[in-house]
Amino acid sequence: MNPPQSFLTPIQPYLAEVETRMRRLDENHHQELGNALEHLLSSGGKRLRPAVALLTGRMFGGDPQRLVTFSSAIELLHTATLVHDDLIDGSLLRRGISTLNAKWSPAATVLTGDYIFAQAARLAAETESANVVKRFAMTLATIVNGEINQLFSTHRYTSREDYFTRIYAKTASLFELATGEAADLSQVSDGIVEVMRKFGYDLGMAFQIIDDILDFTGLQETVGKPVGSDLRQGVITLPFISYMENNPTDDDVQALIIGEKVNIDKLVNDIRDSGAIDDAFQVAQSYIREACDILSVQPVCDERDALMELSEYVVMRHI
Amino acid sequence: MNPPQSFLTPIQPYLAEVETRMRRLDENHHQELGNALEHLLSSGGKRLRPAVALLTGRMFGGDPQRLVTFSSAIELLHTATLVHDDLIDGSLLRRGISTLNAKWSPAATVLTGDYIFAQAARLAAETESANVVKRFAMTLATIVNGEINQLFSTHRYTSREDYFTRIYAKTASLFELATGEAADLSQVSDGIVEVMRKFGYDLGMAFQIIDDILDFTGLQETVGKPVGSDLRQGVITLPFISYMENNPTDDDVQALIIGEKVNIDKLVNDIRDSGAIDDAFQVAQSYIREACDILSVQPVCDERDALMELSEYVVMRHI
Repeated sequence: MNPPQSFLTPIQPYLAEVETRMRRLDENHHQELGNALEHLLSSGGKRLRPAVALLTGRMFGGDPQRLVTFSSAIELLHTATLVHDDLIDGSLLRRGISTLNAKWSPAATVLTGDYIFAQAARLAAETESANVVKRFAMTLATIVNGEINQLFSTHRYTSREDYFTRIYAKTASLFELATGEAADLSQVSDGIVEVMRKFGYDLGMAFQIIDDILDFTGLQETVGKPVGSDLRQGVITLPFISYMENNPTDDDVQALIIGEKVNIDKLVNDIRDSGAIDDAFQVAQSYIREACDILSVQPVCDERDALMELSEYVVMRHI
Repeated sequence: MNPPQSFLTPIQPYLAEVETRMRRLDENHHQELGNALEHLLSSGGKRLRPAVALLTGRMFGGDPQRLVTFSSAIELLHTATLVHDDLIDGSLLRRGISTLNAKWSPAATVLTGDYIFAQAARLAAETESANVVKRFAMTLATIVNGEINQLFSTHRYTSREDYFTRIYAKTASLFELATGEAADLSQVSDGIVEVMRKFGYDLGMAFQIIDDILDFTGLQETVGKPVGSDLRQGVITLPFISYMENNPTDDDVQALIIGEKVNIDKLVNDIRDSGAIDDAFQVAQSYIREACDILSVQPVCDERDALMELSEYVVMRHI
């Protein structure tokens, strides 16, 4: 589903170790937990978060074993939030593969998510860095708070500022954690840690914007869900916002904002045919430019080049 | 609801700080999260776990601020697991007060639990002890794994061994964490940490056995739920097991084991009128004796005496 990318070459053996670490559960765990975790982990995630953590840490010569532990923690945290997310959304498919939620009771799904949180926290603690665990917990709080905001919002927010806040909580906060704490574990200065947090932030923001573009432009087979899914669920993303800014009186736009019935297929086509997709793409590219500016002054090595390539991949995958 | 106990006297100011720390949320948190947390924390928990952690740590002269942080983490972990528990059981009342679940959607309840986990993990990390966080994560895994075992069990287990395994996961594991890591934070030897883990284990086992006895003997107003709730939900506890051992051919016992309809009120009365309650109480007392034996060789101080008193309170509260 995801052909190996050349930017993964410098860290291929470590990524393989991450796969093993993520599956290593406590003795005495219930067998269904192992089955559930295997189902979740084998369903084609790109492992971008572990990849950026490993590349960042190795760029600064960080200890590979601590970075493997940390990267496994990051991906498990991501996995646990997806499990609870799918339960909350009632999603039956993710990346074209059935969610846990589709197969299991809500009770089992809640508990499996909790168990994966516990494993993630344990791996985070095994890095032996109090900073890592603190930031880890704060990131989980940020992600969950973002979801609660969305759940309780009584109207549909349509400002760019609100959109950026939402995608920070949803996606960029975890990328920021991955790169910042990978740098921290590799014993660089606090200044470099901050810079690398910014790198992860930029990368994560771009990644989510492209994801949101793909919801308009992608083929169902690639995206794993029907085109226009976000709008159908009332989730406002950048292409819609851009279209709305240029077509404020459009009937469908107005209807969608107040939650009235809208012909989503028509609206998706109108947005695709407008300059909104390109506008959103420009925003993603500007984040990636900032990310690459940060990389340009980091140590020259294969890992840095790989991070450059990965950053470009993040914006080019929509084509 | 719970009159102040004299064994809390040596740690009263620290317990007050725990109340404050547990309520201190991130900036930017959604207001409903604060409301939900306040509702949960103000619903009359006894704070026994923070109390044993604080008393244990102070018995060894541990730093009060680190112990307050740790004790707050313990109680929040406990609170988070209760939130997800009530959702799973569909409980509408706990300690006679409405659960989050009764007021909120499942989605909001899942997320609130997750957010409280995040806060608990953050406080655990703020102890600056990698051991604390590791054990913390392992305990969460133990608790959740226990719940999953119960969820997936295809028949009703009736052995004492299975019962002890279940109440370890459900209750004693967290008491063990509270006392063991409080000792660890107070810089005692590894041997003493192990002994104090055992103390917490004994206390937690006794506590849960008494809780299970109260489900048969307690007044609804005290327990906050109808008498016989466990049996009604198919949860097998020690009084039933003891009764079954002495009355293996009893029709109601047989029917309950295979999940057939049973007159629970009659069975509860039969169990109350038998020696099963006293037998279960003897088991709880033997755990408390072991707990007190451990305390008897610890440093002589007010905190040790308070832990003795607390241990006796745990078994006497059923009278």
